[in-house]
Amino acid sequence: MAVILVKGTLSKMSEVDLVRRIGRWGRHAPAPASSLVHGIGDDCAIYRPRGCREDLLFTTDLLIEDVHFRPSTHRPDDVGWKCLARGLSDIAAMGGEPRFCLVSLAVAEWAGARWVEGFYRGLLRLARREKTGLAGGDLARAAKVTCDIVVCGAVPRGRALRRDGARAGNAIYVSGALGGSALGLGARAGKAWKRHLRPEPRLALGRFLRELGATAAMDLSDGLSLDLRRLCDASGLRAEITRPPIYPGATLDQALHGGEDYELLFTAPPRVRVPEEFEGLPLTRIGAMRRGRPGVTLDGQPLEALGWDHFA
Amino acid sequence: MAVILVKGTLSKMSEVDLVRRIGRWGRHAPAPASSLVHGIGDDCAIYRPRGCREDLLFTTDLLIEDVHFRPSTHRPDDVGWKCLARGLSDIAAMGGEPRFCLVSLAVAEWAGARWVEGFYRGLLRLARREKTGLAGGDLARAAKVTCDIVVCGAVPRGRALRRDGARAGNAIYVSGALGGSALGLGARAGKAWKRHLRPEPRLALGRFLRELGATAAMDLSDGLSLDLRRLCDASGLRAEITRPPIYPGATLDQALHGGEDYELLFTAPPRVRVPEEFEGLPLTRIGAMRRGRPGVTLDGQPLEALGWDHFA
Repeated sequence: MAVILVKGTLSKMSEVDLVRRIGRWGRHAPAPASSLVHGIGDDCAIYRPRGCREDLLFTTDLLIEDVHFRPSTHRPDDVGWKCLARGLSDIAAMGGEPRFCLVSLAVAEWAGARWVEGFYRGLLRLARREKTGLAGGDLARAAKVTCDIVVCGAVPRGRALRRDGARAGNAIYVSGALGGSALGLGARAGKAWKRHLRPEPRLALGRFLRELGATAAMDLSDGLSLDLRRLCDASGLRAEITRPPIYPGATLDQALHGGEDYELLFTAPPRVRVPEEFEGLPLTRIGAMRRGRPGVTLDGQPLEALGWDHFA
Repeated sequence: MAVILVKGTLSKMSEVDLVRRIGRWGRHAPAPASSLVHGIGDDCAIYRPRGCREDLLFTTDLLIEDVHFRPSTHRPDDVGWKCLARGLSDIAAMGGEPRFCLVSLAVAEWAGARWVEGFYRGLLRLARREKTGLAGGDLARAAKVTCDIVVCGAVPRGRALRRDGARAGNAIYVSGALGGSALGLGARAGKAWKRHLRPEPRLALGRFLRELGATAAMDLSDGLSLDLRRLCDASGLRAEITRPPIYPGATLDQALHGGEDYELLFTAPPRVRVPEEFEGLPLTRIGAMRRGRPGVTLDGQPLEALGWDHFA
């Protein structure tokens, strides 16, 4: 549910400002009897069904032709895979287990029955692996292929990992190495390109971190500099970091500001022993949360929240 | 969740065929432990949270510029209202109570901050009235304004009104009068036009019908001839009807095949006494379900499932 920057279109509103405004408008339309535990501004919304031991997580993500993918370089099964992977990554970030998805697909003139079939093939391959049911959706015709996916996940009641849970003194970690997706998008070949096309949602890691006692988590969809800033804003703290682990061949800029790595960014108290790796994936301490005005410093210098530019 | 006909684009696949194929592919990706009670092919998917007395309903609907609305004739607050009304109408059709919604909005170049604000104003006016929380969503930029809404509702466990519940001998009813939305779209003025712009989801009626003992229900989004045919297909029966009540000034064709009336179509056993009206809205018996090959006859003649043509 990472809200995407709408540059140019809404020139007088920053993304943060717009999300805040929508959140404010939304407060005038509350769900009945506190069943909506957590709303706008995190990876997922949290809904508590009446008399139930589980909380349900909901996330929604748009994937649009010529914004998030290009028909000339992205095969339909890659598009379908990525569409679901983005939603599953939000569920992973909250420590959840996926349950089902709903897929709304608007199909452009150029995309025929074979394209639609390829799209669903890629999406359902990942859905099967991650035990995520396809519950339904909608189909329409449009000028550009536009897909909106909703994924529902579940966590034990009150246990979802949120962005606002970090405390001063908590260590900051990332999984894997960063910048691979941005590198791949530039190169259009090799392992990094595959990583860009078929991101891996870190579902097992997210559940592990929830059980381990992480205090906050989110997925790195828009770049470390922007996403960590969001975690700082939500938790009301600042972050001091050093260089993150960099994907082989990527630049520091790609690791800091490149988006779509879909690794997890998380915080944990010093007493929690975070292992050096989880199922072969490195977990690296990159800094600590401190009291102070929300913001990020890298090796003592302010780090601008550039993040992933969808319109570059 | 009424799936929209994708004419031209997928010329070799009929809509029914495509939905069936997606349903078949989807069966290979089942949700864990039968928690997904009912999936593709109804107004809503039904999800049963573990150890809970309620079933949750989910519906998703796309609303696309130049397909479902035109910027020159539809004000942003009308678009926002209609976007939510379509989803709420699906919840009404299952006899549910709305809980929350998620809104994904792709914004075109021409639509600035004022348009976005108008859109949310219209949507949230209806959300407040129907106690539907805004839980979150996604924002992006696109060539055309595209909105996808997901609405979650709830019903007592096992009590959702489905399309497949009709039995031979059941009477068929519709609420209100049909053809008003199609009439309004042609006239672009007057009460019928307002009806087209701001449809009223029949939520109170849906809950009343569930408690009364209706056997099946759906909302009339794509026209009586097409929607009743879908109910026949789901229930494995044929329908014999007479002329439905016609909106003042509309033609019989508009009443039979015009879409977007958002009235309820439902069936009930003869022993159930359906009142002549509910809160001022007429409830009219238009025929009966019979054993036989799925299909519809009007005054004894086969009625073709023309439905609403989004591309006319």
